[in-house]
Amino acid sequence: MPIERSTVEAWLREDLGHHDVTNHVPGETTGRLVAREAGVVAGLEAAAAVFEYLGVAVTDRLADGDAVEPGAVVLSVSGSARDVLRGERAATNVVAHASGVATRTRRAVTAAREVSESVRIAGTRKTTPGLRGVEKRAIAAGGGDTHRLDLSHMVMVKDNHIAELGLEGAIERVRERASFATLIEVEAEDVATAREAALTGADVVLLDNMAPEAVERAVTALADLEDTADTGSRENFGDVITEASGGITLETVREYAATGVDVVSMGSLTHSAPSLDHSFRTG
Amino acid sequence: MPIERSTVEAWLREDLGHHDVTNHVPGETTGRLVAREAGVVAGLEAAAAVFEYLGVAVTDRLADGDAVEPGAVVLSVSGSARDVLRGERAATNVVAHASGVATRTRRAVTAAREVSESVRIAGTRKTTPGLRGVEKRAIAAGGGDTHRLDLSHMVMVKDNHIAELGLEGAIERVRERASFATLIEVEAEDVATAREAALTGADVVLLDNMAPEAVERAVTALADLEDTADTGSRENFGDVITEASGGITLETVREYAATGVDVVSMGSLTHSAPSLDHSFRTG
Amino acid sequence: MPIERSTVEAWLREDLGHHDVTNHVPGETTGRLVAREAGVVAGLEAAAAVFEYLGVAVTDRLADGDAVEPGAVVLSVSGSARDVLRGERAATNVVAHASGVATRTRRAVTAAREVSESVRIAGTRKTTPGLRGVEKRAIAAGGGDTHRLDLSHMVMVKDNHIAELGLEGAIERVRERASFATLIEVEAEDVATAREAALTGADVVLLDNMAPEAVERAVTALADLEDTADTGSRENFGDVITEASGGITLETVREYAATGVDVVSMGSLTHSAPSLDHSFRTG
Amino acid sequence: MPIERSTVEAWLREDLGHHDVTNHVPGETTGRLVAREAGVVAGLEAAAAVFEYLGVAVTDRLADGDAVEPGAVVLSVSGSARDVLRGERAATNVVAHASGVATRTRRAVTAAREVSESVRIAGTRKTTPGLRGVEKRAIAAGGGDTHRLDLSHMVMVKDNHIAELGLEGAIERVRERASFATLIEVEAEDVATAREAALTGADVVLLDNMAPEAVERAVTALADLEDTADTGSRENFGDVITEASGGITLETVREYAATGVDVVSMGSLTHSAPSLDHSFRTG
Amino acid sequence: MPIERSTVEAWLREDLGHHDVTNHVPGETTGRLVAREAGVVAGLEAAAAVFEYLGVAVTDRLADGDAVEPGAVVLSVSGSARDVLRGERAATNVVAHASGVATRTRRAVTAAREVSESVRIAGTRKTTPGLRGVEKRAIAAGGGDTHRLDLSHMVMVKDNHIAELGLEGAIERVRERASFATLIEVEAEDVATAREAALTGADVVLLDNMAPEAVERAVTALADLEDTADTGSRENFGDVITEASGGITLETVREYAATGVDVVSMGSLTHSAPSLDHSFRTG
Amino acid sequence: MPIERSTVEAWLREDLGHHDVTNHVPGETTGRLVAREAGVVAGLEAAAAVFEYLGVAVTDRLADGDAVEPGAVVLSVSGSARDVLRGERAATNVVAHASGVATRTRRAVTAAREVSESVRIAGTRKTTPGLRGVEKRAIAAGGGDTHRLDLSHMVMVKDNHIAELGLEGAIERVRERASFATLIEVEAEDVATAREAALTGADVVLLDNMAPEAVERAVTALADLEDTADTGSRENFGDVITEASGGITLETVREYAATGVDVVSMGSLTHSAPSLDHSFRTG
Repeated sequence: MPIERSTVEAWLREDLGHHDVTNHVPGETTGRLVAREAGVVAGLEAAAAVFEYLGVAVTDRLADGDAVEPGAVVLSVSGSARDVLRGERAATNVVAHASGVATRTRRAVTAAREVSESVRIAGTRKTTPGLRGVEKRAIAAGGGDTHRLDLSHMVMVKDNHIAELGLEGAIERVRERASFATLIEVEAEDVATAREAALTGADVVLLDNMAPEAVERAVTALADLEDTADTGSRENFGDVITEASGGITLETVREYAATGVDVVSMGSLTHSAPSLDHSFRTG
Repeated sequence: MPIERSTVEAWLREDLGHHDVTNHVPGETTGRLVAREAGVVAGLEAAAAVFEYLGVAVTDRLADGDAVEPGAVVLSVSGSARDVLRGERAATNVVAHASGVATRTRRAVTAAREVSESVRIAGTRKTTPGLRGVEKRAIAAGGGDTHRLDLSHMVMVKDNHIAELGLEGAIERVRERASFATLIEVEAEDVATAREAALTGADVVLLDNMAPEAVERAVTALADLEDTADTGSRENFGDVITEASGGITLETVREYAATGVDVVSMGSLTHSAPSLDHSFRTG
Repeated sequence: MPIERSTVEAWLREDLGHHDVTNHVPGETTGRLVAREAGVVAGLEAAAAVFEYLGVAVTDRLADGDAVEPGAVVLSVSGSARDVLRGERAATNVVAHASGVATRTRRAVTAAREVSESVRIAGTRKTTPGLRGVEKRAIAAGGGDTHRLDLSHMVMVKDNHIAELGLEGAIERVRERASFATLIEVEAEDVATAREAALTGADVVLLDNMAPEAVERAVTALADLEDTADTGSRENFGDVITEASGGITLETVREYAATGVDVVSMGSLTHSAPSLDHSFRTG
Repeated sequence: MPIERSTVEAWLREDLGHHDVTNHVPGETTGRLVAREAGVVAGLEAAAAVFEYLGVAVTDRLADGDAVEPGAVVLSVSGSARDVLRGERAATNVVAHASGVATRTRRAVTAAREVSESVRIAGTRKTTPGLRGVEKRAIAAGGGDTHRLDLSHMVMVKDNHIAELGLEGAIERVRERASFATLIEVEAEDVATAREAALTGADVVLLDNMAPEAVERAVTALADLEDTADTGSRENFGDVITEASGGITLETVREYAATGVDVVSMGSLTHSAPSLDHSFRTG
Repeated sequence: MPIERSTVEAWLREDLGHHDVTNHVPGETTGRLVAREAGVVAGLEAAAAVFEYLGVAVTDRLADGDAVEPGAVVLSVSGSARDVLRGERAATNVVAHASGVATRTRRAVTAAREVSESVRIAGTRKTTPGLRGVEKRAIAAGGGDTHRLDLSHMVMVKDNHIAELGLEGAIERVRERASFATLIEVEAEDVATAREAALTGADVVLLDNMAPEAVERAVTALADLEDTADTGSRENFGDVITEASGGITLETVREYAATGVDVVSMGSLTHSAPSLDHSFRTG
Repeated sequence: MPIERSTVEAWLREDLGHHDVTNHVPGETTGRLVAREAGVVAGLEAAAAVFEYLGVAVTDRLADGDAVEPGAVVLSVSGSARDVLRGERAATNVVAHASGVATRTRRAVTAAREVSESVRIAGTRKTTPGLRGVEKRAIAAGGGDTHRLDLSHMVMVKDNHIAELGLEGAIERVRERASFATLIEVEAEDVATAREAALTGADVVLLDNMAPEAVERAVTALADLEDTADTGSRENFGDVITEASGGITLETVREYAATGVDVVSMGSLTHSAPSLDHSFRTG
């Protein structure tokens, strides 16, 4: 979904209030959103939607995922001065925020690429309330993997499910209820469970809160399973995807990426990315 | 998502208007939503939400997926007479509609089960505008497979993508952009394309607008591929899911189910299911 | 009200999800919504609003109520390929649904016209939740009568009102509360009640769940009343409108129309009309 | 429709802002909305909804339409002091506004009753934006007639329609398009047009911007028509309703009521009614 | 915030209903909103937004605050006849309402100017629910002072706060919690309290429900304090603003203005201003 | 405004999707939101609103602003397991985010307190889109100053205003337009401008992008003005508030606080605060 107009309306409403005297100015103007730090830009569709809501024309813009240096103009507008000024703060805030996510993602991907060609750096559901779509698309802009977009996108089999029904029972139950279009991920906190999950039919095995060495052992254990696999069913453990998660940071992502795991997911891509500084200039 | 309160509000608003004289009655009452045809009920969470919006207590209700006979009470309420009457039409309409979908799904599943233990009967994105969630959950209630819930849930590689980039290029491009959590389906209108799609890494092959015999040939062709497969990558065609779609009806579903295809999807489950008759009784 | 933008937004949101990879394509395109069955089209204002929300130009379109043959282009658009693809499913779904209602209405009207020049074929409040306006306008497009649009549009005096206050008391009470602009309809399940309702001042008498013969007898009884009427008050039974309702189908509508009743209302026009198949083509 | 929660939310949002320090108080309290002038109260359902949105219990309240003297407690609440204070202004404002409408309506009705037992004092569509339902129900609370609730409730044949198609053609066209449940009103600015409208099948004749004497002449002319009528069709002019409108005030309503007209409608009931003073007291 | 599109949508929805037959006309037209009384216009941004929502071009318009004579064209539009007619009532109602507020404000300001060059005539929070922004901007258009826009804009120390913590304690507590950007107003019902409030650090002293003579005495008492002040802290009573409020009308505003008070606030500017008559003409 | 229900609805909708299989579990459960890091909690009203939307009871909770250690239970709930699980992610995300803001604010305040008793640490308008209120209240919870809540709360006189009208003209114009309840802040980038702004009647002087030494010189220059002031008008520069802003971080806040400036504002409190880690536990 492109950013919703009702969302843009709420952003403007919360910033403008009932009677804005400051921006009560006549005439037409142009404006430019300018990056003040090096990074990767994102959120430009949302910023454009802010100005379009106000009837201000977006005359030029970079694309989400473009790298910028300080001073780069990321979006240009033209319209009534009053409406340009009405939109400037909301537009700047969303680009600064989304670009912060994209930039952090790019850094994590770059660090991981040093040790792995194929590992995916993924986000989580730990996003800022109200900005799920904006942040997921910012992750994609930064070269990351969005991971599941919402709860309905992929099923997670957790501890408590397993405690109740056993691993096999738990997987069977969700396989029956979930669509064929929905993958099933199983949480594992040790190598044995990971191995069992793969053998029982998980599409994805989540190696949760494990040290890099444990992740590596789990990945190796599952690869060994694959080598001996000979069935052709969809539940074939030969295709199991491995994901490492839990407190992984820009400092430790390289270590995890080196384990051979398929996916490294990091909540901090969205919940703790500092914004990328931008300013808005008119005239 | 449970049904949204803002959606319930819109349902009531469109039915009540500004000044309803008919239901301006004093006192308390009870009410019962009663099935008038045999079938499978659904939409009960939405009906309950209608009454809860109005401050009317839901004192009892069946579960989505329950089979009913004429006369079965599917939901009971208690509250101010005025508010019970305000909610009756919206609640009845949503249950009648959703139960129509669930009932039609159950019929399709039952027909398919005569010839296949495992085939999944799935919906499509051809749902009634505004009711995507209600209808998808009604399909599940009827024993069907929701299929992809929205465009972001599964990627579809279509004719025009293939025309532009070739099948391999097209799949590669979406594999790169889509999350590991998102399956990739490729449209095929003949056996050769289906085979190529499987070999190139499709997770799901859509056998679109083919006669049952052609579907059967395609399924067999892909099964043969599986028997000779020996790789362990995720793109392993050994796991490819087959789906038949395109104008399949309650009359033809059995034939398609008999082909050995994994999934039979039917737009008519949602776009052409007659409602299941219900009435609301008070006092 | 033309279709609301917030409604269109909800339709798009439910279909697109947070990150749609399939339709992430560059460039401009044209698109055409094409009928695949013969029928009557409706919902075109809503489909146009879907594309306009996305900034896609609607370059041509038929009018609601136009008859179409398979292959007819009902709506043409031009815009960014991405936005055209974003809108295609919601636009197609609403036109298919509304055209299904219009087509079924046209069939009922055509059947009725064989036996009556003047009978009106009307919908009911049994509409799909969220689509009251779309479906009522689709009925009008099919040549039907919208009937009351919401509860505030016409007052209905029901069994329980009559049980409490007597027919005269009940009518008097609502006449006092309802605007002069609001007609009063009284439910009757037999000829005697129908006659009494007309004599007591009902504007409309609902002949509910009666067989065609009973409807005919009631209509004749009321016509006899008219012939002997001599008062000039608004409550003059000389003007009473008769309506037959309750389980009337495409199969039985002709019989009811032949009774001389003024209005035949059919819930199935909206709650059980199969959609009219349409497809969307780009390029 | 009872007042919508989303509307109540907007009322609170516009009054509270992002960080209200004044009402940041601990503990529980009770509160009372008290009338400070004599009049007729209305809007109580909306005021109750304000408090219910905030989780504050409404422990007692008068009914819309009740007459009050200064000091009368119209609504009592109990809850957390913070939430009671959050709701006080919005609740007071809506009751003061709606009661102003109800009180002005009661005055107009009382003035008219001195000269006519049966004349209806009606509102118009000149309501305050966003408050159509609240104000229409306030008119009813004051003993008035809501008149048409929205454009779809009754059809108006205006000058420009008549200029284009002639009176007969214009009425015929709307009769065909409008539901049997919808009355047709024709605007007339002189007696001759009023007579023609009645003869041509108007359900209601609007005597617009005429002096009382002209209204009286038109009413008499239409009554004479009635005396000679002998047809039984619905279009029988014997039942035509007459309505006087256009700049009628509390000062002139008695004169218009004395003309024998059926309905006197006054925009000032809603667009120019001063509020009925109320205050809110806690503790 | 300019008027929100969702608000405009609600205004249109409440006026149009599901199926408007009256305005179903072909072709293009122009339209003009015309003042029928002398006064000050306001609400034009909202009226323009109504037409823009419907795709109707606003070709010309006056500015909020402009004085008009009967017959003045305040807004001109051009577009499809159907959409012009759809918007006419909502646009007319909001301009008539807002202009009523602006006109009453101008009258109060004019009366006050006869006796004071500098006194500000201010509104209150007694606005019509849903129209806070529209009415506050109308007050500004009439030359008045908007006063606090919402509860978060300025803090009010009331009786009950003072009873609990003493005046000094109450002011201290809110000073600590409120931003430096937020003024603190203290309610006083007599001269002694007013004096104490000023000495204790109120930014604004509200002289509530006092006769003009008492207001004058309080203002003098505070001016005497100023003459002897010698501190430089922000809490310096030398800068205290005085406000008179409580039942002040167009008849009494001059008397209050003559007291030397800084601000005279009047709830009646918004809660009891009759609308300024306007009509809409097409063609 | 407490968090809006429509906002909570949007948070849940974006996280749950159309058909969540994972959390489809029977029975009742309890749940606890637990801090995993030391810090200051905030956002608890919003988290409670998430659960209340879902019908889950909040049985206990800390207050915004409470300090927590790892393991502290900040919120406890009880309800149907399905609904508890539906709300867990949105509730956790908002508390983690808001607590991140509160914790960073507390750190900045603590650093500043080492060198100044009275300096206020304030936020800016650089908030996360959609979370203005949540973040402003989180700043207050951390002991900071919310600064202006929206554009209408305080007027800012900027470079371009001054360039056009001169400083005196610019201030005069906004003083005339803004309410007496609204302070006026003037941007200054050097000491001379700051001095002129104070002399000309600014309520607040913004020392923008200055080094600490320059800020100190400006503050001293304004204090000297105060010592010589002798007027009693509101525009008295004796009360001018000084604010330092522009790239101030947790590292530099102490230096700025030591300058004697009244307010130090930091955009990073909201745009770059890492979240405070929390987890949710059931059963």
